[in-house]
Amino acid sequence: MNIQIINGPNLNLLGEREKEIYGNIGMKEYLKILREHFKDFHIDYFQSNIEGELIDKIQETAKVSDGIVLNSGGYTHTSVAIRDAVASVSCPVVEVHISNIFNRESFRHTSLMAPKCKGSIIGFGLDGYRLAIESLRIVHSRES
Amino acid sequence: MNIQIINGPNLNLLGEREKEIYGNIGMKEYLKILREHFKDFHIDYFQSNIEGELIDKIQETAKVSDGIVLNSGGYTHTSVAIRDAVASVSCPVVEVHISNIFNRESFRHTSLMAPKCKGSIIGFGLDGYRLAIESLRIVHSRES
Amino acid sequence: MNIQIINGPNLNLLGEREKEIYGNIGMKEYLKILREHFKDFHIDYFQSNIEGELIDKIQETAKVSDGIVLNSGGYTHTSVAIRDAVASVSCPVVEVHISNIFNRESFRHTSLMAPKCKGSIIGFGLDGYRLAIESLRIVHSRES
Amino acid sequence: MNIQIINGPNLNLLGEREKEIYGNIGMKEYLKILREHFKDFHIDYFQSNIEGELIDKIQETAKVSDGIVLNSGGYTHTSVAIRDAVASVSCPVVEVHISNIFNRESFRHTSLMAPKCKGSIIGFGLDGYRLAIESLRIVHSRES
Amino acid sequence: MNIQIINGPNLNLLGEREKEIYGNIGMKEYLKILREHFKDFHIDYFQSNIEGELIDKIQETAKVSDGIVLNSGGYTHTSVAIRDAVASVSCPVVEVHISNIFNRESFRHTSLMAPKCKGSIIGFGLDGYRLAIESLRIVHSRES
Amino acid sequence: MNIQIINGPNLNLLGEREKEIYGNIGMKEYLKILREHFKDFHIDYFQSNIEGELIDKIQETAKVSDGIVLNSGGYTHTSVAIRDAVASVSCPVVEVHISNIFNRESFRHTSLMAPKCKGSIIGFGLDGYRLAIESLRIVHSRES
Amino acid sequence: MNIQIINGPNLNLLGEREKEIYGNIGMKEYLKILREHFKDFHIDYFQSNIEGELIDKIQETAKVSDGIVLNSGGYTHTSVAIRDAVASVSCPVVEVHISNIFNRESFRHTSLMAPKCKGSIIGFGLDGYRLAIESLRIVHSRES
Amino acid sequence: MNIQIINGPNLNLLGEREKEIYGNIGMKEYLKILREHFKDFHIDYFQSNIEGELIDKIQETAKVSDGIVLNSGGYTHTSVAIRDAVASVSCPVVEVHISNIFNRESFRHTSLMAPKCKGSIIGFGLDGYRLAIESLRIVHSRES
Amino acid sequence: MNIQIINGPNLNLLGEREKEIYGNIGMKEYLKILREHFKDFHIDYFQSNIEGELIDKIQETAKVSDGIVLNSGGYTHTSVAIRDAVASVSCPVVEVHISNIFNRESFRHTSLMAPKCKGSIIGFGLDGYRLAIESLRIVHSRES
Amino acid sequence: MNIQIINGPNLNLLGEREKEIYGNIGMKEYLKILREHFKDFHIDYFQSNIEGELIDKIQETAKVSDGIVLNSGGYTHTSVAIRDAVASVSCPVVEVHISNIFNRESFRHTSLMAPKCKGSIIGFGLDGYRLAIESLRIVHSRES
Amino acid sequence: MNIQIINGPNLNLLGEREKEIYGNIGMKEYLKILREHFKDFHIDYFQSNIEGELIDKIQETAKVSDGIVLNSGGYTHTSVAIRDAVASVSCPVVEVHISNIFNRESFRHTSLMAPKCKGSIIGFGLDGYRLAIESLRIVHSRES
Amino acid sequence: MNIQIINGPNLNLLGEREKEIYGNIGMKEYLKILREHFKDFHIDYFQSNIEGELIDKIQETAKVSDGIVLNSGGYTHTSVAIRDAVASVSCPVVEVHISNIFNRESFRHTSLMAPKCKGSIIGFGLDGYRLAIESLRIVHSRES
Repeated sequence: MNIQIINGPNLNLLGEREKEIYGNIGMKEYLKILREHFKDFHIDYFQSNIEGELIDKIQETAKVSDGIVLNSGGYTHTSVAIRDAVASVSCPVVEVHISNIFNRESFRHTSLMAPKCKGSIIGFGLDGYRLAIESLRIVHSRES
Repeated sequence: MNIQIINGPNLNLLGEREKEIYGNIGMKEYLKILREHFKDFHIDYFQSNIEGELIDKIQETAKVSDGIVLNSGGYTHTSVAIRDAVASVSCPVVEVHISNIFNRESFRHTSLMAPKCKGSIIGFGLDGYRLAIESLRIVHSRES
Repeated sequence: MNIQIINGPNLNLLGEREKEIYGNIGMKEYLKILREHFKDFHIDYFQSNIEGELIDKIQETAKVSDGIVLNSGGYTHTSVAIRDAVASVSCPVVEVHISNIFNRESFRHTSLMAPKCKGSIIGFGLDGYRLAIESLRIVHSRES
Repeated sequence: MNIQIINGPNLNLLGEREKEIYGNIGMKEYLKILREHFKDFHIDYFQSNIEGELIDKIQETAKVSDGIVLNSGGYTHTSVAIRDAVASVSCPVVEVHISNIFNRESFRHTSLMAPKCKGSIIGFGLDGYRLAIESLRIVHSRES
Repeated sequence: MNIQIINGPNLNLLGEREKEIYGNIGMKEYLKILREHFKDFHIDYFQSNIEGELIDKIQETAKVSDGIVLNSGGYTHTSVAIRDAVASVSCPVVEVHISNIFNRESFRHTSLMAPKCKGSIIGFGLDGYRLAIESLRIVHSRES
Repeated sequence: MNIQIINGPNLNLLGEREKEIYGNIGMKEYLKILREHFKDFHIDYFQSNIEGELIDKIQETAKVSDGIVLNSGGYTHTSVAIRDAVASVSCPVVEVHISNIFNRESFRHTSLMAPKCKGSIIGFGLDGYRLAIESLRIVHSRES
Repeated sequence: MNIQIINGPNLNLLGEREKEIYGNIGMKEYLKILREHFKDFHIDYFQSNIEGELIDKIQETAKVSDGIVLNSGGYTHTSVAIRDAVASVSCPVVEVHISNIFNRESFRHTSLMAPKCKGSIIGFGLDGYRLAIESLRIVHSRES
Repeated sequence: MNIQIINGPNLNLLGEREKEIYGNIGMKEYLKILREHFKDFHIDYFQSNIEGELIDKIQETAKVSDGIVLNSGGYTHTSVAIRDAVASVSCPVVEVHISNIFNRESFRHTSLMAPKCKGSIIGFGLDGYRLAIESLRIVHSRES
Repeated sequence: MNIQIINGPNLNLLGEREKEIYGNIGMKEYLKILREHFKDFHIDYFQSNIEGELIDKIQETAKVSDGIVLNSGGYTHTSVAIRDAVASVSCPVVEVHISNIFNRESFRHTSLMAPKCKGSIIGFGLDGYRLAIESLRIVHSRES
Repeated sequence: MNIQIINGPNLNLLGEREKEIYGNIGMKEYLKILREHFKDFHIDYFQSNIEGELIDKIQETAKVSDGIVLNSGGYTHTSVAIRDAVASVSCPVVEVHISNIFNRESFRHTSLMAPKCKGSIIGFGLDGYRLAIESLRIVHSRES
Repeated sequence: MNIQIINGPNLNLLGEREKEIYGNIGMKEYLKILREHFKDFHIDYFQSNIEGELIDKIQETAKVSDGIVLNSGGYTHTSVAIRDAVASVSCPVVEVHISNIFNRESFRHTSLMAPKCKGSIIGFGLDGYRLAIESLRIVHSRES
Repeated sequence: MNIQIINGPNLNLLGEREKEIYGNIGMKEYLKILREHFKDFHIDYFQSNIEGELIDKIQETAKVSDGIVLNSGGYTHTSVAIRDAVASVSCPVVEVHISNIFNRESFRHTSLMAPKCKGSIIGFGLDGYRLAIESLRIVHSRES
């Protein structure tokens, strides 16, 4: 199974800053744990601060992946364009948020992505990525 | 590990009605699958249509469980009282919604429970329960 | 034809209190008039102040009734859970309100039940129940 | 008993268009059924697409009718002027809506007429007119 | 000086109904008093319940009048079209409301006409018409 | 091809007033240009300040026209009734606005007509009518 | 007849500043015109920038005046306290605004005073004061 | 004097949890203090997590008590049904909130109960109950 | 114990006007009753209609009083400045409202003071002041 | 005449996905038709998913084009930055939307671009581009 | 150059209270630093808790000052009257806020003063006053 | 001291377009003036129209600069992602706006950046950059 993780703006700083919100493990380190855990999966990783590059990647990867794990960061609450990209692809997209966004500023309480995703996993820290891949495995087994 | 699943109003009808939204497997049947999957877990199940009985159960079970999986159904969007019960207990509570609530009527887009839960798992059908228990296992291993 | 009348919170006080709003005839007395009027109908009556018991009754009665007359009282404006119960049953549900709810506090101007009911009858005092049963008779004759 | 039915804009198209919403019986045809059913009633019918003509009719008819059945169509949600006409007459006015307006666009969820009417009957198709006349009969018998 | 009074919907009922709000003098009677008071003025009167006829009249009269006294009744709060008519004419228009509209339902608290009128006179009963003509006299003397 | 242009309130004043907004050519003059340009079309013109007459015309003309060009003027933002008329006809309706309504008062930023029209053409002055007829020609050629 | 004019904040600058809004005649000069015009009236004038002094004056003057003309300036839109003062006195209070407040910033479109005043006169420049005194003369004559 | 204290959801946990908000004394312990302080009073205590049971108790107790002290907890902000129960009884009801609800989440800033209660006492910790009983003593002495 | 009562705008009229809302006892008279009741207390009284003088008094008195009883009248709903004064002092401030503000105009339903006060006592008429002093006695005894 | 078409995010997928909304012809194919139709025009095409690249292109092209046809896709509803770019250029910009945006999610009902564009053409499918170029031709001929 | 600093309510407490927000230096002390720093300036200082006195000062000082530095404290968010005073003077007014008002309660996020000031300087503690005087120096040099 | 100026979308057009809003000096020219004025500072300049590049630059520069002057242009009002970048860095960020944003369209009245910046300087034209650097100098001297 091919899985593509797509991380949005400022998520390149994971493990370095605002550790009280996002924890102190970086994505690089966590990717190792993930790949160890899901040995039979091919897990690709992409991060960009640029909205349009995230759209490009979603369009592109949808043709070759079995599932996308998307954390669109700050764009989650404002980007109709990324939402449209998610809506336009046919492979399942699962939304992940590291922090409990419902506990933060009110503009973070809505996700433009959510209605177009297979499902949402929110608040479990980096382990949200693991649960998202798990969910894609289940979705996949249900459908095949 | 002791897990308590608590289901709110109308979830006793799972598998019987509105199958296009909730699927056609009943909770009884799915519980078997869950218990099979998590053999080393003790999984209790409780359902009530009465708001106050859900509060009673949350208060009670919090003393003996290692984690609660809560699907508060229609009360999710209106019950300050259940939210207060969740806030008052110290064992981790994970929120599950079977359908993608962000794709339905606008009054279903907010959850009063979410800010007081460990995390939320939304839109994966009955498999949301499995992911929730999985998440509690991870939370548990992180903390011990 | 089997008809189930379901009355929500505080409607046990009909005829006793706030008579300027609800009139001075009790439900017991009015039921007699109703049964007299609809001699060929079996009319059951249920009242509870507890939200979940109303849900239980709706679920239960839907299997054996030809129509439900629902006055969900104060829960009309707040209960997503009762709405979900109405949505989940297949027998026709007709909503009744004794007073003209559009003439009272603004929070009474919306009904969460209405979109899931066959129809709504509002403002005719206790005679609303009679019109509701009449409407169920017509619905029934149209469909058979 | 003299009853005046007043239908607002586009209701002249009943039975011809948007049949999935309004059914496929025209008003002419239904009037026959109504007059058959209420043999001891004199039932007048008026339809206009012009807001002010509806006001004229309400003012005029109120002096000679024992009750008005009003379906103000699209003006229901916008016309303070028709509302004022209803408020200014002393004969009882009963509001009818053919479709379940609470199930349609949100701007149809409020009725400017409702607070000034004796009562509202919503969602029963053309049979709403029959229930409305029935309700006027009951109101009349209560008062005399 | 030529003055045109234009009254909107339901104002033909002045002195007949809802006297606690609008007083018990009819417009006919009051017009006599007005014409007596303003002997050197020619005062025309027009009333219609039809929105478009009010627009027609405003357009028409603006070419021959020195001032318009407009009480657009229930259309005050909803009619962009009458507002546009007022905006399109160059003779001064003064808005009158008989009752204190700020003391009534909240939808009466705004006037679509006001920003396009010379001024507004509100709450003085029928005497508002007298003050309005007075104001037009002053405006006229200022400008000439 | 038969085209019906329908203009709403105050559009009879085109070319006479508020020229900074609507330009200084009257509709009569522009109709000549239009008919010259679309020689193979039969172009009818109708204007009324009365909401209900616009509804009458839409209903009527829909049976004999191949397309309607509708500029409902000030009713655009308030008339559910005209919207319902547009929704009830099956020939294509194209909405035109002479001025850029998004640049004016905020209550002009929404069109109740738009969701029920084939399309909207906004801000091109009187040339909007030409573009609208052009669009109907294209729609027609696509469908035949 | 004793009339008290009460002017609120910044109205001491009349005739000096923002002349495009408020005109170029000062209050002193206009008072002379007023007293000339209403020779049989005693007209007192009071201005303060301090909210509480306006309240003091309203309370005080209400015992000795036959009517108050109140222009509460910028406090019109914010002062519940002045409104309460107006509500507490029994002599008639007429509200005046020099400019057309409905044509300015949206926070100027509501008046907390209006519902507690006898009536409102808006947009006639300084002549609003003359119309207000005129209105008090009429009110007085009606009541005596 | 007979006083009934009615506590709503989660208030059975007083003194056990969220002590930084609710203090560390339990209701049992505080009741002793209260009964000591008001020796000449009979003080009954009732707590339930179930909305409908609170309604039952209010209806019931109103017939035998001289006053009700009501802390409806999380239902305060959502329950039209309890509000209706309070409105339906004639003995005085005083609302108590332990914490300063105006300092917490915004959905706690409004009380559906308040408009139907004799008065509200908010923010004094458990001593609010003492002040409420004190207030009922004063109310009682005023009325007798 | 030194207690300072601070009353805001229009409260100098207590017992004179709007007696149906505020009762018919003046503050002078009630102060005598209060001082009689709390013999061991020194009770100072201050009233002003001027917002800034209330701020001055709060700042000043906070240095020498053991508690402030504040009824900020109409400023309650609008004055950020008085709120800031309350927030800036360290002696306890208790808010009192004579009438049930939740039963009046909607702009009276929020108090800018409440979140910065020790507690709020609302709706008990002048007896609210007695309960407030009682509450300060309890607060004081708890803390010493 | 030089025309620049600028397409925003996800419009590279035209003809491939969500064909029920956007039709099944790709932009490449349609460009051929356009160039055929407007033989005397030079038509440039640019598409990017990146907001800032759209801004760059608008700034750049405005110096050499006679008109811009802009479909800013999902950025239409959120991008103040693109709006500012449109506002900053002097060559005419015409807004096109393929689908009827007023018929879709409510966040698509507003366009930040519209007030800064020459005009808007909405709902005609890909033919909107043809109408837009037509409109630019007319604008050009009017101005020269 | 003559500079007038005007401070609003509660700013007389600077350096004494709520030091975590406003710092621990008093205005007296900081004025010394300012005068030292701007030796060639005459810096006047005025503070009042009374809204109207601030208005008086702004009107007065505008005639003799080259610039006003205004911190209107809690009145910033509510006072239309002070805003009107600022709008009425022609010397430049610069707004200062000591704390970052955008980080505090939501009612502090808007300034009624800002649109009428030359500019705003927010969040730099007492150094905001220094930057404001600096800005007035620059403004002055630009204009001369 | 190292200072980084970061300018957002369309600010590359400074001095070329919309001069009535932004003035007629370009950034290049003004940078010379700035560097002249702050001779002991190293001032870097960066401009991009691409949201993500601004984020990249903020992250990058924060490691080597002593302060950032940020004018995020049109992204100020919409970009949660840039806000998150500002929140994630530890060097002080000062927000500058050239025009008085509170005097323009209402969507420009809020800044998502402001709560995460050291302070905001708004409305002083290009001199805002000079004041911002001045403020960073003061901040720096306070902290060292």
